[in-house]
Parts: sequence; C-alpha cells; structure tokens
Amino acid sequence: MRQALLCLTLTLSAAAQNREAVFAEFTDFLKIPNVAADPADLRRNADWIRSALARRAVPSKLLELPGAVPAVYAELLNPSATETVLFYAHYDGQPVDPKKWQESAPFEPSLRGARFTDPDARLYARAAADDKAPIMAMLAALDALRQAKLTPTINLKFLFEGEEESGSRNLGRILAAYPAEASANFWLICDGPVHQSRRMQLYFGARGVTAFNLTVYGPIRELHSGHYGNWAPNPAMLLARLLASMKDDEGNVTIQGYYDSVEPLSETEIAALKAVPPIDSDLLRQFQLARPEASPRLLSEAINQPSLNIRGLASAATGPASANVVPARAEASIDLRLVKGNDPAAMFSLVKEHIRAQGFYLVEDREPTETERLTYPKLASIQNREPGYRAVRTSMDLPASQQVIANLKTIYPELVLVPTLGGSVPLAIIEDAVHVPLIGVPIVNHDNNQHSHNENLRLQNLWDGIETFKALFLLR
Amino acid sequence: MRQALLCLTLTLSAAAQNREAVFAEFTDFLKIPNVAADPADLRRNADWIRSALARRAVPSKLLELPGAVPAVYAELLNPSATETVLFYAHYDGQPVDPKKWQESAPFEPSLRGARFTDPDARLYARAAADDKAPIMAMLAALDALRQAKLTPTINLKFLFEGEEESGSRNLGRILAAYPAEASANFWLICDGPVHQSRRMQLYFGARGVTAFNLTVYGPIRELHSGHYGNWAPNPAMLLARLLASMKDDEGNVTIQGYYDSVEPLSETEIAALKAVPPIDSDLLRQFQLARPEASPRLLSEAINQPSLNIRGLASAATGPASANVVPARAEASIDLRLVKGNDPAAMFSLVKEHIRAQGFYLVEDREPTETERLTYPKLASIQNREPGYRAVRTSMDLPASQQVIANLKTIYPELVLVPTLGGSVPLAIIEDAVHVPLIGVPIVNHDNNQHSHNENLRLQNLWDGIETFKALFLLR
Repeated sequence: MRQALLCLTLTLSAAAQNREAVFAEFTDFLKIPNVAADPADLRRNADWIRSALARRAVPSKLLELPGAVPAVYAELLNPSATETVLFYAHYDGQPVDPKKWQESAPFEPSLRGARFTDPDARLYARAAADDKAPIMAMLAALDALRQAKLTPTINLKFLFEGEEESGSRNLGRILAAYPAEASANFWLICDGPVHQSRRMQLYFGARGVTAFNLTVYGPIRELHSGHYGNWAPNPAMLLARLLASMKDDEGNVTIQGYYDSVEPLSETEIAALKAVPPIDSDLLRQFQLARPEASPRLLSEAINQPSLNIRGLASAATGPASANVVPARAEASIDLRLVKGNDPAAMFSLVKEHIRAQGFYLVEDREPTETERLTYPKLASIQNREPGYRAVRTSMDLPASQQVIANLKTIYPELVLVPTLGGSVPLAIIEDAVHVPLIGVPIVNHDNNQHSHNENLRLQNLWDGIETFKALFLLR
Repeated sequence: MRQALLCLTLTLSAAAQNREAVFAEFTDFLKIPNVAADPADLRRNADWIRSALARRAVPSKLLELPGAVPAVYAELLNPSATETVLFYAHYDGQPVDPKKWQESAPFEPSLRGARFTDPDARLYARAAADDKAPIMAMLAALDALRQAKLTPTINLKFLFEGEEESGSRNLGRILAAYPAEASANFWLICDGPVHQSRRMQLYFGARGVTAFNLTVYGPIRELHSGHYGNWAPNPAMLLARLLASMKDDEGNVTIQGYYDSVEPLSETEIAALKAVPPIDSDLLRQFQLARPEASPRLLSEAINQPSLNIRGLASAATGPASANVVPARAEASIDLRLVKGNDPAAMFSLVKEHIRAQGFYLVEDREPTETERLTYPKLASIQNREPGYRAVRTSMDLPASQQVIANLKTIYPELVLVPTLGGSVPLAIIEDAVHVPLIGVPIVNHDNNQHSHNENLRLQNLWDGIETFKALFLLR
C-alpha cells in the first residue's frame, strides 16, 4: 500500500504536466454531437473512443445488435490478476435546445474561468459532465499509469453504452448477447455527480422510478363559470382534493402500504448516512427555500424513502390567459421515486387503489366513454405510464464494497458513502443481466446542469477523476 | 288589455310577412365587425344603428366622451305617457379568432337550417346573439307597431353601448355626463339568454364577479425529482392542499364567513325559483355529467349562492412533455361569482384571510423576494386581480317588476322568472348611475356559443323577440 501511495504522488505532477493535452483531447471528443435523434453521430462518438483506446494500445470492439446503438467494449488483462472489474460509462447525451444555451453552443465546447488550470474553471458542452467526463478521465488515467510505468493490478474491462439517455432500452439485450464481455467480479458505474459538498463519493445504489399522467374529468366541454360555476363539478378542484389526499402536511405519503415494502437500511448504511457532510442548509439557501418538505429531515434520509412527486399540473388556463370557465379536465403528472424493496408495478397499484378508495372510477390508457361520464361522478384516467425500473442497493458490507472503499480512502480520507443516489441510473437492467455487485463511482460536479442547457464540467473534477481511476486501476 | 291582445294577433301575421326584410337588414348589420380592437369599426356600427333608426323616423345621437366608444341614444316620446322606460343593449362583440370558426367567418353571416323560416334555423356570426339580436328585434318591433298603426303607450328610450365586452369601462362616466338621457322609471336590460328550456324569461339581477391568480412557490428553479423529490417542498402539492381546503366534498365553500353576507331570497323569489322548469337532468346529459357538484342541488338554487371556481391550473408540464422535476411554482386562476349582499372586495379579503390561516405568507401584485422565500415555508402571491363588480338584484315585488311580468305573461303564460342570471352583466355600474329598477329581458337562445367561435342566433328567438318588444312598447 505504501508503495502505491508513493507512485501516486510521483505521477500526480506528471499528470499536471499533461493537463493541456487531456484538455485538448476532451474538447475534441465533446465536439461530436451525441443525441439519440442522430444514430450516425452516436457511431462517430463510438469510433472516436475506439481510436482513443487504440492510441493507448488498448484493443476494442463494438457490441452490436440489430436496432441498437452499439456499445464500445475494451479490456486490458493482467495475466497475474485474480480480479476483473468492469468500468461502465455512457457516451450518448440528452437532447439539446441550442436556443437556450448561453455559455456555448452545445457542441462547441467553451471554457469559462481565467484558465483551464483554475480549479473552478468550467467547460461548457453537452455531455461535458454526463457522461463523457469519466470516459476521458479513464483514458487519461491509462496514460498516467503508463508514464509511471505501472501495470493495472486487476483485469480492466470497459463498457461504454450509447443509449443510456434513451432509458438503456437495449442494454439488457446487449449484455445477454455478450456474456463473456459482461462478466466481472463487480461493476463500477461511472456516472452521476460527486457529493454536493464537492467531496468524492461512492454510491451503492440508486432510486428506482415510475411515472404516469393522471387526468380528472369534468363537463365534456368548458362551461361558463357564471352560468354553471358552483353547479357543474370542477375537475381542477376534484384533482386538488385527490392530490391533497395523497400526502399529509409533513410530506409523508398517506397511501395505504406505501412504506411497507421498504427494505430497512443496514447498520453500516445508517452509519454511512450519519457521516454524510451536512449540506442541507447550503442547499436550502441555494434553492431559496425556508425549510425542507418535512422538517426536520435530512436530504440523505429523504432519498432513502419512496417519494410521490407532482411533476406538473394543467387545467384550462391561468394568468392573463385565463377565461371564465369551469374547465373540462385537469391533469397532474406524477412520479414515484422508489427505494430498495419497492416493486414499481406494485407501488403504482397502491396509488391506483388509493385513487379508487377516494371514490374515483379509473380508466387506463384511454379517455372515458360517454356512458362512464354519465355514470361516475368522480372519473379519472391514467395515461402516459412510464413503467420505469426498481431501485438497486448493493450492500456496503460486501468484500467488493469494502475493497473499493478502502482503496479510495487512501486518496480521499473524507470519502462520502451513500446507500442510494437520488437520480435514477439503470442499475436494475445491469443487475438483472450480470448478478454481481454494482458500485457507483461518480466524478463530476453536482452543479453541472445535467439534462439541461449550459451543461458543464468543473475542471478540477476532471483532474480528480483521473486520480480516482488511477487508484482504482491499481486496486488491491 | 283585451284590445292590445287583439292588435298583437293582427300584427303577428304582418310581422311574418316582413321576416325576409328583417333577415336581410340583420345580415347587413352583422357584416360590420365590432371588436374592441378596432374603434373605427365600432363607430361604423353606431352609424348603422343611427341610419336604421332614421329610416324609422326615430332621431338619435351619440353619447360621446373623450377616450370612450360612443353609445347610441334615441327616444320616442309619447306626450300622453306617464312612464319612461329605457331599453339597454350593446352593439360591440367579443374578440374573434377566425381560424376557429367552422360555420361561417365571424363577419360573414351564414344561415344553417333548411330556410330561415325554419324555427330552429340558426344564423352564425359574431354578435348574432350577443348582443345585436335585441337591437334588431327592437327595430323590427317599431316597424310592426307602425304597420299596426299603434303608438307606444310609454316614453321609449334606447341606449346601445359600445364597450360592454370591454367591461363597460366608460358607461358610468357616460351616464353621469348625460343624466337627462339616462333618466327613466326603470331600465330593461336586453342582453343575455332566455331559459335553457327555450321558454321566455325575465331576470331581476345577475351574479357579480371578482377574479385573481394565485401562485404558490417552491424552489427558485425546477429541481431534479430524483435528487430532491420528497425533500424540496413541492409547490403543486402545496397548492393542491390549499385549494382543497377551500371547499368540502359537497362543493360548499369552507372559507370562514363566505355565506354570511348573502342577502336571503324573498318569498316571491323563492316561489319564482320553485316554478323554474326543471332542466338539470337535460343539462347533465348534455354536459356528460353524472351529478352536479353538490347533489341534490338545482342549478337555479346554486346560482343564488356565491361560488368559488378554479378557472385553471398550471405548474411545469404534464403529459408527454412532462419532465422529472420538482416544479418551481404552481398557479391557479380563481373566480368568485357573487350574489346580492356580497361585496367583491370583502369576499376577496375573506379568501386572503383563509389563505393566511392555512399558514401562507401572501404577497400581492409581485413576486416574493429572496428574503421572503428564505423566511416563509408556505409562500403565495396574488396577481392579475380583476376587481369585478357586485351582484345586483331588483325585487320582484316592485310595481315596475309586477308590471313587466304581467305584460309579458299575456303572450308568454309560462314566462320564467329568475332572481339572478348566472352570467355577469354590468348591472352594478348602471344601478350606481341611475338608481332605478333594472329588469333583464333576454331574447336569444342559451346555446348561442356566446363569447366563443361559431356564435349563433336561433331565428325563432329573433321572431319571438320582436313580439316581446312589441308587447313592452305597449306596456300599461
């Protein structure tokens, strides 16, 4: 261990000298558009990665299936190694709306900050953070090892997906078609952000999710609120009452059985949560909030409970556009964020049972018929269902978990350990395919505008990420 | 009375012969656009009315004020008459969106139905019903009297406003500037629809109204619902809970004192309500509703209670456009329909007190500051306030009321009498200016698409309207 630490110290300055080259290579990578709408662009990204690996003498190939965007696969085997670790990341990015980008065009990377050596300097481009940064950091870590004449202590496998932002819709099929490539002692999921305190973190799971659109019906057409207000049932009020019945004033979900299937946290996980640096008051200030939904409750605790969140509301019009009507319908878009133990379909059923228990007749995937409208005073539909996926949580007590924790604590003594990441990553698809532990190793800043315009990477996170992967390539 | 009835019978057939001429003249009138956006067009309408009156040897003038669309005024005095009645109508129409008109262009009147003599034939054009039809019916009624060689038994005054659809914003000033012209024993308000049963009706008042936009605040920007859902307060849920607190499951408003200022109906009014033909089940079928908001409650009863109606809801997005966010804000547009006794400002204050009693800090006519956001966990604003006006209700027991009722019952034995019309007409402005009884004499069909595209007049209502005004011109 002492020897490894010495090497790391030596190579750190070497890496510093190479930052200019890393920055140039990364900028080159970010210039290639990577949205799902253009599969040819995605293939150019895959080709770029393969060339970058080839420059480092790492052979690679495409994992291809008809109708799927290919994944890039590479391995660097060490004949004396006893362990194999697969590093997962993805090279596709979220759709872009160039009109909204102020700091750069989405695929014309632009540096903001005095110089790229300024730790807080940021590079703006689509996928600068999510999720090309880890790929670049791994490439640079391979260079750093070579410069330091070090050989990875484990068999390294790399799998870079091209459809993560499209819900990883073919990943399960790809992994099933390439079992040898997917096989490893465990996977490291290199996606997501580090802790909001900017400390490096490991995550051992992620929330699951399911979502749907709920519509409550009033009269078949909008009615004049003078002639019919207070007589015609108002769907916006019916929806408000229905939504209000789903949570209490402290933010607890009041749907029967909602918390029953939650798998309790282990003692290790509870202890890890307690050690998470307090960031709640900073976040409240940043978001201009007086208190969290339920007070007192820490964000790190809240994320380990299933949530019910209204994503949006719509009924007739508001503001200057509003008209004197009883609306014909009122809609809410709702997502359920799930934790370990919650089955998405079962949780969705609990919500439906709750809606029925409030006296609603519920139809699915269609509008109600005239007969249903004339029969049921409280009438709702569920449409645009997104089945989503379950949460995954790898035990922190597993040998693999303990090994990764110990390794990274050598360079990050204040390493943050979270049982569940708030954002949803398709861990369930991977877990179902490979049945090995999954551990999240994020490197990018949390304030990266991921999925939005002006996505950016704080450059210090890239430099730290290179150190992270170098350490992991030397895992013992 | 017997003599008058005989004359009516004689002139009826004369009027039938003249329908073709009336139809042609009305079509000509409807071709003149009459939206507020074009004051020159409004003046062309005023000029057309003055010409039409001149053709009937009725002198007229404009009641003009700087900055106001002029009203057309005319009088036909009978030296032996002891009573003066002013007939009010308006010649301006609601804005139009020509793309939405299927049956005709808004100002290219089009007949639907076999022939215009078909009682159910409809004439489609903006203002065909609201409110040019009564003006045309009065002109034709003057012709019919002349053909029958009858003289009005009362002094007739006509006042046709040009800004009713803009909230009658200058009517009070005009009436104050022309007190001699405005003076009468009582006013007949010739606007609004007949009863939904198609029976002729008189209304003795109209609901008042006030409206506003209510916004509830969450985080300063939308947050990722995975990272922050169940921790960041959700403004859509806060709004739903607030709205739900305003009414019970039976549609009764639960705001403290909401019903306290309601002036009870008199015995005559209660008896009149009981005699209103039952139309509720027809309307439920037509609107595809299983039951009214509160069951059992008749529409005619509901209209005599103050209402609280959600006109619209908005927060982030729903349906296919929805995103995984905790919204930053949630809005509801709300209107209060008021009855006799309710002061609009006082009712609005009750709603604000209720919002505060639910724990909300409330700002008005602005967005909250950062300090307010950081201080108050429940934060709302009221904006886009429409002050509106109070309800008016003329007693049915007044001699003027009894006189008009008796007169019209001679031709409509099943005349419907309603204390309060659902729709709001600017009766309060008139009452404040002239301090005389106001009685509503509507002639158009209720299903006229008023204020919307495809506005239309059922022609039988025009023919009946001519008989109505002829009878009123011979009031004793």
